[in-house]
Amino acid sequence: MPSVPGVRLAAGLCGLRYKERDDVALVELAHGTSVAGVFTKSKTASAPVEACRKALHSGAASALLVNSGNANAFTGSVGAEAVENTVKAVADLFPCRPSTVFTASTGVIGERLDDGKIIAVLSALKDKLNDANWEAAAKAIMTTDTFAKGATRSASIGAETVTVNGIAKGSGMIAPDMATMLAFVFTDAAIPSHTLQEMLNGAVDRSFNRITVDSDTSTSDTVLLFATGQSAKHKPVDLGDDPILADFRRALEDVMIDLALQVVRDGEGATKFITIVVNGAEDDRAARVIGMSIANSPLVKTAVAGEDANWGRIVMAVGKAGEKAERDKLNIAIGGVSVAANGAAVADYDEAPVAEHMKGDEITIHVDVGVGDGASTVWTCDLTHGYIDINADYRT
Amino acid sequence: MPSVPGVRLAAGLCGLRYKERDDVALVELAHGTSVAGVFTKSKTASAPVEACRKALHSGAASALLVNSGNANAFTGSVGAEAVENTVKAVADLFPCRPSTVFTASTGVIGERLDDGKIIAVLSALKDKLNDANWEAAAKAIMTTDTFAKGATRSASIGAETVTVNGIAKGSGMIAPDMATMLAFVFTDAAIPSHTLQEMLNGAVDRSFNRITVDSDTSTSDTVLLFATGQSAKHKPVDLGDDPILADFRRALEDVMIDLALQVVRDGEGATKFITIVVNGAEDDRAARVIGMSIANSPLVKTAVAGEDANWGRIVMAVGKAGEKAERDKLNIAIGGVSVAANGAAVADYDEAPVAEHMKGDEITIHVDVGVGDGASTVWTCDLTHGYIDINADYRT
Repeated sequence: MPSVPGVRLAAGLCGLRYKERDDVALVELAHGTSVAGVFTKSKTASAPVEACRKALHSGAASALLVNSGNANAFTGSVGAEAVENTVKAVADLFPCRPSTVFTASTGVIGERLDDGKIIAVLSALKDKLNDANWEAAAKAIMTTDTFAKGATRSASIGAETVTVNGIAKGSGMIAPDMATMLAFVFTDAAIPSHTLQEMLNGAVDRSFNRITVDSDTSTSDTVLLFATGQSAKHKPVDLGDDPILADFRRALEDVMIDLALQVVRDGEGATKFITIVVNGAEDDRAARVIGMSIANSPLVKTAVAGEDANWGRIVMAVGKAGEKAERDKLNIAIGGVSVAANGAAVADYDEAPVAEHMKGDEITIHVDVGVGDGASTVWTCDLTHGYIDINADYRT
Repeated sequence: MPSVPGVRLAAGLCGLRYKERDDVALVELAHGTSVAGVFTKSKTASAPVEACRKALHSGAASALLVNSGNANAFTGSVGAEAVENTVKAVADLFPCRPSTVFTASTGVIGERLDDGKIIAVLSALKDKLNDANWEAAAKAIMTTDTFAKGATRSASIGAETVTVNGIAKGSGMIAPDMATMLAFVFTDAAIPSHTLQEMLNGAVDRSFNRITVDSDTSTSDTVLLFATGQSAKHKPVDLGDDPILADFRRALEDVMIDLALQVVRDGEGATKFITIVVNGAEDDRAARVIGMSIANSPLVKTAVAGEDANWGRIVMAVGKAGEKAERDKLNIAIGGVSVAANGAAVADYDEAPVAEHMKGDEITIHVDVGVGDGASTVWTCDLTHGYIDINADYRT
């Protein structure tokens, strides 16, 4: 990953849960950095999520602090105090205003976060800050992830080229209609927070809100987008629909879709990556609902795990979505081969290429609902013994 | 199971899919039998479901024909023709009007139903009809079920005692907001179809609509309630709110809850039966939504499978339900032991009895949302390797 002017990172070990890998990341953001955020819709959101929502009001960011191993969720007033304590310690360290410090936590829910352990390593983290520590930071925020997740793109704003870098973590408790677990995106473009927010909302809608691993929604989901303004040569852009931002918007969406797909590929126990393309729905919203109904179906996901082209279960999932559908207009293709058309199995379709497709790592399902022009693509993974293994005894 | 005057049953093998067990059940209903039904809300409902919905208009029933092994779902016009053919064959056999013949099919979706195989055994089935074949009929309609499901109660209507018998099948593709897969309930009471329908709607709402195995909704879910009127001594009751029906209503609900719980206990791969009691929600509807959010969470279900009292995941599931909830008012008890109260873990709760409870077969989770008076109880099972084994290659 290239550096992003105005962003310096560090990773370290504070020992909240893990003992032999980094578990805390600190990011310093240049003076004048603007920020936007999207958070979980959970009614039991974590203490850091609640604190970030408040901090976002200022539109300005000086630092980001993230820990893994403990989500600081459902921890009551001591959880809120732990956030306050770490925010204050970061603000004193740099120094900066506490209202410009953002935090995120991921890990076990319901256990008190020992903020003293984090605060004890802050000074050492500050000494390690540099503009190249992207992978170290991405590793420090992992929980059940099996690989660190990062993506980068460049974009033109007028005559200038800016960089968009993102890191993310997420593997289980991944569901739509919100962000993923944690994703942080950084750019050196100069864009005010209200414009950033509008662009972030759109990009989340086309990335993290179109993936699911297990239909479960985290208490901690956080996506933050920081713009340091350090590219300095282009004029600050004030309106999201300014054509000068078109390429930046494309780069932002690319980075976020890239990160979202990495999260799905690393889905707990996943052995196959599934792309579900829905066309012909009543509208785009209906297409996404139908796509997510297929993507969240345990029966579809186990069939894919078993390399079984069981399209009857896809029919079932379309039917249960509750959106407009007519059996006799429904078309389904697996791996590009039409298996069901106009309300019935395609007579004598060639099972061999479909069976071959099911043996691969990348499964594609096309559904044409046949009732309108709505379209959406969503992504998920299969449901395997590995998911059960990982989650049947996570805490011990 | 006792006999129900006016109901005679038979089971046999027609060889649609299974070769060494019965796969078809025929039920003869006395002249004058009234009928009510509740069906899947799937937009891709099976051909028999569509035919039953039409047949229900007459309010009268003469026969019920059920097969397992093939769901006759997503089979297009040939599927509808197969239903017509079998209905006509039954109507010719008895004889009776085709509009009084009800059918249900369960098994693989999307494969043509060979109605000739069913029709070929109808005459032999008719010869075997008797009033004692309840278990044989319950066995013939099974698919992945591991045991036959039946329940019986008696009820007083005025001075007379009537019987309510039910049989059901279901193990996977079990989700709320509809019936279970297939359930058939029979009584000798004399109750007109519109009153039966009103009572059935209420009883479904308190039984099959409160269970889930895997959140997947079948294309074939059918609950039919038949009243033969053969008790003959009580006057036909025309209004569901007639106090004379109070005890009958109780018996009907008891039978249907009994059957629903048998379906959950036989959930695919299930090792533990889970009762989720939600209190203090905004209203009863919200309580059920929250209960079902917990019951459908793969992370809650795998934690129970792993005997892990991971109440943090219960918090997550309450949060994602989208209903009114306040973290600082939420209370959770597992096996009767309070583990989380007022937004945080209960300090120093005794883990030993909770761990002991998690080792048992019957898990109880109490959630008090703390924001109102709404209450609901729902039932589910754990998510295990067995579910993956059963569903990763069902068709072969």
